Amino acid sequence: MSRGSVGQRSETVRRANLSAILRELHASGPLSRSELVARTGLTRSAIRALIGEFVAADLVGEERADPLGAPGRPSPVVRLNPQRAFVIALEIAVDSLAAARVGLGGQVLDLRRVDRPRRHFAPEEIVADLARLAAGLRQGRRADGDLMGVGVAVVGVARRSDGFVSTAPNLGWHNVPLGDRVRAALGSAAPISVANEADLGALAEARRGAARGSDDVLFVSGEVGVGGGIIVDGKPMSGVAGYGGEVGHIAVNPDGRPCRCGSIGCWETEVGEGALLLRAGHPVDGGRAAVDAVLLEAAAGSSGTLDAMEAIGHWLGIGLASLVNVFNPRLIVLGGLFGRIHPFVRERLEAELDRRALPASRELVRIVPASLGVDAPLLGAAELAFEPLLADPSHWLPPRDLLVLASA
Amino acid sequence: MSRGSVGQRSETVRRANLSAILRELHASGPLSRSELVARTGLTRSAIRALIGEFVAADLVGEERADPLGAPGRPSPVVRLNPQRAFVIALEIAVDSLAAARVGLGGQVLDLRRVDRPRRHFAPEEIVADLARLAAGLRQGRRADGDLMGVGVAVVGVARRSDGFVSTAPNLGWHNVPLGDRVRAALGSAAPISVANEADLGALAEARRGAARGSDDVLFVSGEVGVGGGIIVDGKPMSGVAGYGGEVGHIAVNPDGRPCRCGSIGCWETEVGEGALLLRAGHPVDGGRAAVDAVLLEAAAGSSGTLDAMEAIGHWLGIGLASLVNVFNPRLIVLGGLFGRIHPFVRERLEAELDRRALPASRELVRIVPASLGVDAPLLGAAELAFEPLLADPSHWLPPRDLLVLASA
Repeated sequence: MSRGSVGQRSETVRRANLSAILRELHASGPLSRSELVARTGLTRSAIRALIGEFVAADLVGEERADPLGAPGRPSPVVRLNPQRAFVIALEIAVDSLAAARVGLGGQVLDLRRVDRPRRHFAPEEIVADLARLAAGLRQGRRADGDLMGVGVAVVGVARRSDGFVSTAPNLGWHNVPLGDRVRAALGSAAPISVANEADLGALAEARRGAARGSDDVLFVSGEVGVGGGIIVDGKPMSGVAGYGGEVGHIAVNPDGRPCRCGSIGCWETEVGEGALLLRAGHPVDGGRAAVDAVLLEAAAGSSGTLDAMEAIGHWLGIGLASLVNVFNPRLIVLGGLFGRIHPFVRERLEAELDRRALPASRELVRIVPASLGVDAPLLGAAELAFEPLLADPSHWLPPRDLLVLASA
Repeated sequence: MSRGSVGQRSETVRRANLSAILRELHASGPLSRSELVARTGLTRSAIRALIGEFVAADLVGEERADPLGAPGRPSPVVRLNPQRAFVIALEIAVDSLAAARVGLGGQVLDLRRVDRPRRHFAPEEIVADLARLAAGLRQGRRADGDLMGVGVAVVGVARRSDGFVSTAPNLGWHNVPLGDRVRAALGSAAPISVANEADLGALAEARRGAARGSDDVLFVSGEVGVGGGIIVDGKPMSGVAGYGGEVGHIAVNPDGRPCRCGSIGCWETEVGEGALLLRAGHPVDGGRAAVDAVLLEAAAGSSGTLDAMEAIGHWLGIGLASLVNVFNPRLIVLGGLFGRIHPFVRERLEAELDRRALPASRELVRIVPASLGVDAPLLGAAELAFEPLLADPSHWLPPRDLLVLASA
């Protein structure tokens, strides 16, 4: 068979193989060459040559494996260099702003989070605060590390292509070109990606948290609003423009309360922070302090508060049953407020699922609290920012000898 | 660069390239070699060699293109041979059974549909009826055509891996190993795949109907129950075991009617056939004849019937708004009953979407009736049955000369 009938251009294949190797190392940490052979399906000689390219770019290092125990010549261990390539992750949450410097492989090199009052601020104020926070991040040990990208998690509905935020009710924003504003404030040429914070929480929990290893996952996060991030067949589902996953706005109660989105009886009107505070007898606008108080009362066994949790569990179960029937997921990860109240709502929530979800899907799904806590969306923003590098590392590698290439 | 560092084994690449070519021809019909080069990104010499393999297996033929008009040497046109490779598609619907013989490329070679009463029948009776229907299909012109697979659409919840039907309320079935039963009844060694009829309707509409060319599609089909098929990023979303897409069982009315699934206030209790008949003053169990009468009354302008349509449109809009917020689709295709009533419910449905869906997602979505009509699930079953061939055609090709392979 001639080379031509293999068909796929060798450069395309090389890029796909570089990407496969980098994704494995980024997701799993240090791996021996043998493990990389097993996981990528590439030949040993291909792994050796491609790792050589990464080593030349200082993106990875190799070291002798511990020879103890294993017979034969030990396979060198390949390890990413988190100082060489890093990203900046930013988050605009309801109660806080955050910035982090995250190295290739997911190592958090520095992270700063500051409270912010829940008032509405103009986009330029918040972006300026974020830029200051990012500028204050500790520099790496090496001055020559490369900023590979910037990821932004926002509590709003963001268009994936350009980071345009069509609406963010908690910020009072409509039609804000957030990606452009962040680019201007940072003064960086690195690619900037913006996504909804629940989508990014899902991504982080799937890559590094409670949903690691699961391909069909719903991440449902409670805050003032209710956000959702959906992983279908191992990939984030974002819809045609990145607006998907707005599970807080499924209609569960057509005779219910008006929702901030303009509709009536959305799920978040029954299970969001306001609904919990109202049922537990606290001021609806009490914010984090009031939520902390409700959790303390629940832990102390206050019957009124436990009744409120029961009601929230009931409505949580109704909405989750609908999502289970639509998605047939393996795992539901409860984040934010829902992760915190999980111990108090679990029993009722599971009972509603038993009653309302189709048995075939019901018996396959587990419901667990998130494991990355409040930082999940920020870590997801870092994952998003690494995506261009992971998808095609060849842009960051030194040019190869054209004579060698020509002999292929 | 050495061959080894290209890495991916040439056999894997060959299979992927054969698959890409066959999928293009199957989806788009006859294409010139030049068009195949443009669509697959393969080199001209690779296309020539791979087409040669298909021609040797008689799966495709080549013919001279019409030389008129185009300058230079015309590119030969490559055309599938629908008689050489075919599938059997079967459907178990609420009111009918159907069987079809469909050639590679999607050509329907023969199709038989028979009414069935809505009573519950034991699985063995229905499977025997289906087998008789399949045996009665006209044979092809050539005796040596190969049966590539069997696809079955069933009005129930089916596990993708083995065709196990966990529940099919309209048939009165629970835990029926439908795949195994069809295999035994047909006495065929061809692979058998089973899926939910709405999932398959979505697949057919996406490949050959109203949703052709759209990557993010909801297919929502009304019958006695309400089924859904969801295309995410160009691929059917089926969930962890193939049970996903049961949009008829999202809870829209917590104080509503009991649903056959055991829950309360599912969407199908408000928009299914029974709800329409009830609101229009017909017996709920009137079946197709009653539905036909309702449509005639609506067309004649009966105000009571139009009021009923208005109410159905209201509830259709509520459920669709939830799905739009969760999926951010480009297109919603209304199938079955919903396709038929679309002219009468459209206005109210669109108004509810305006009111209840998030504006960013709302403005991107169009709602259209299905274009393949009642046969959409059956045609989708054929697509499902072609999948093993399309995914890896190499199994059906003559063994290649090993000496030639070794020289690659």
